Amino acid sequence: MSELRYNVATRDWVVVAPERARRPEDFHAGRPITTADRPAHRADCPFCPGSEDHTPGETLRFCDAQGNWMVRSFPNRYPALTPESQEGRPKGNLFRRRRFGSGTHEVVAESPLHNTTLGLQSPAEIEQVLRAWRQRSQDLFHRPELEHLVVFKNHGLSAGCSQEHPHSQIIGLPVLPSSVRRRFDDAARFYQKNQGCVFCEMLRVEQEEAARVVVETYGFLAFVPFASDSPFSVWILPKRHSHCFALAETTEIRELAGVLKQVLARLYLALKDPDYNLIVHSANPPGPGSHFFHWYLSIVPRLSRMAGFELGTGMYIRSSPPEADAAYLRQVNLEALEGPKS
Amino acid sequence: MSELRYNVATRDWVVVAPERARRPEDFHAGRPITTADRPAHRADCPFCPGSEDHTPGETLRFCDAQGNWMVRSFPNRYPALTPESQEGRPKGNLFRRRRFGSGTHEVVAESPLHNTTLGLQSPAEIEQVLRAWRQRSQDLFHRPELEHLVVFKNHGLSAGCSQEHPHSQIIGLPVLPSSVRRRFDDAARFYQKNQGCVFCEMLRVEQEEAARVVVETYGFLAFVPFASDSPFSVWILPKRHSHCFALAETTEIRELAGVLKQVLARLYLALKDPDYNLIVHSANPPGPGSHFFHWYLSIVPRLSRMAGFELGTGMYIRSSPPEADAAYLRQVNLEALEGPKS
Repeated sequence: MSELRYNVATRDWVVVAPERARRPEDFHAGRPITTADRPAHRADCPFCPGSEDHTPGETLRFCDAQGNWMVRSFPNRYPALTPESQEGRPKGNLFRRRRFGSGTHEVVAESPLHNTTLGLQSPAEIEQVLRAWRQRSQDLFHRPELEHLVVFKNHGLSAGCSQEHPHSQIIGLPVLPSSVRRRFDDAARFYQKNQGCVFCEMLRVEQEEAARVVVETYGFLAFVPFASDSPFSVWILPKRHSHCFALAETTEIRELAGVLKQVLARLYLALKDPDYNLIVHSANPPGPGSHFFHWYLSIVPRLSRMAGFELGTGMYIRSSPPEADAAYLRQVNLEALEGPKS
Repeated sequence: MSELRYNVATRDWVVVAPERARRPEDFHAGRPITTADRPAHRADCPFCPGSEDHTPGETLRFCDAQGNWMVRSFPNRYPALTPESQEGRPKGNLFRRRRFGSGTHEVVAESPLHNTTLGLQSPAEIEQVLRAWRQRSQDLFHRPELEHLVVFKNHGLSAGCSQEHPHSQIIGLPVLPSSVRRRFDDAARFYQKNQGCVFCEMLRVEQEEAARVVVETYGFLAFVPFASDSPFSVWILPKRHSHCFALAETTEIRELAGVLKQVLARLYLALKDPDYNLIVHSANPPGPGSHFFHWYLSIVPRLSRMAGFELGTGMYIRSSPPEADAAYLRQVNLEALEGPKS
């Protein structure tokens, strides 16, 4: 019997239709190979150590005690947006365009190893990646031409990833996308109406109900949202209200690394290294009204497809109830995790 | 050099980044088989003639002069929503849910032939399909529990289609999805500000610029929108302002069938029977304020994937400029079209 659920933070309805249910095992049927099966180094990979001259203009490098890089960032060779800031004349009222789409597009190589992924890396290594995201975000926020910044990771082909080497991306935009603006506006409206943050309230209720929680620590809650639109998608929220990821404390970054490791390792084992997108949802530090927002990470395994219904309505149909996804992720035995071959 | 474009009707920005360009030929590379290569009839197909008892509860049947059905509709066996209208008690303010997700979910079998598709069918056959969509929409609009209706078609695996037999779907919803409500609100706001419909204005400018037009008739314009978010996606708009597809005149339905045939046949040849979604964007007949909306069809070939950037911002990155897509579709030689094998 199906059920309609409403997500207060995104204001979207979702259809939970267990008649169409698939078991968790159905999602990874026949998956032939995982990240860890790849070689540890590929000479033809532009992100592997030794190919640094294929990615000029390095913007950040974190090294180990021996001076080998652990994480580095550099401009994307095939950028969606480039830093030229010249703007074309808008053409009439109706067709607005900006030539040169000024902005930035960087890649963060997350490890020197070709055959690892965040879910297999240690919390200490993941912490370096999160610190790189925070550092580059802080640096880029000083550019006056950027209106919004988004940090994201595409893992696997179905998630839109074209380079095997573990990496994430940072795009700086000269416009605030309307869907992001709406999220900020909605958060502000909720705040004014209820004298509180919608995400803080969501945290409180998810903690209380507990049925959808995957991992909880002192400062973070990872859960499958009550009305999440996609199977096994997980949100990680800091319990401390803050609108901007780039303003996270170093102790928070460290704690988040541990939570992220837990969540991604569980997904890796439960769904056999699924393709997924990870997105940092955050407001820029100085945005007007943006302090009503509450930053968080969302992890979206790419297990289902958008079809005509989703494109036409913005609503999603999911088969498994979020409670079942969370229970399945909680019971995963993390000791079964095997790292990459060296 | 990339460019940012703004869609006034959807209020979304799109990035046109030709640095990442693919040629139209790249989109269909290696496509092994098309719809027309399938058998004309499959005994194990629940939608083929002879299997009518697998789809009980027929809601519509259009027949030819010999009494054989040409188009029929029936309830989906695996419905996303079912008609039970009982509603669960909402649980607190934050977590709204409706049990039994009352609604309807119907399938329209578009042809007795297993191996055809709208792009290969004749305008007269397509007209029957459009009339079926209109008829079922009119019937369902009388149900007081339905707040919104969406007619759509998923063609091919990447478009979320699980049955080969040519068919479309109609879902009736007990809620108005927020993204649809926003579209209505945006249209109303534009109307109040500019004393006119945003879609009528878009029609005027697209006609004038002509560079993105694919097909034009007396009453309809098919074009690749200035800021369309996905390669080769086409909008078909009636020139007469009307908010509701179900209220279209029979002469309009006939003309639309011809335009749709043109557009889908061009896509079929240009991209070798691409997977696509077709959506009828329409307001319900009596919706408050909904007459500011303007109904239209969108056809979205599934050639690119949503990745972290799109999920995080709602913005899309496309490589080919819409003008190039339209030019490529216009130069297709429709005489090359081969129908299904019998």
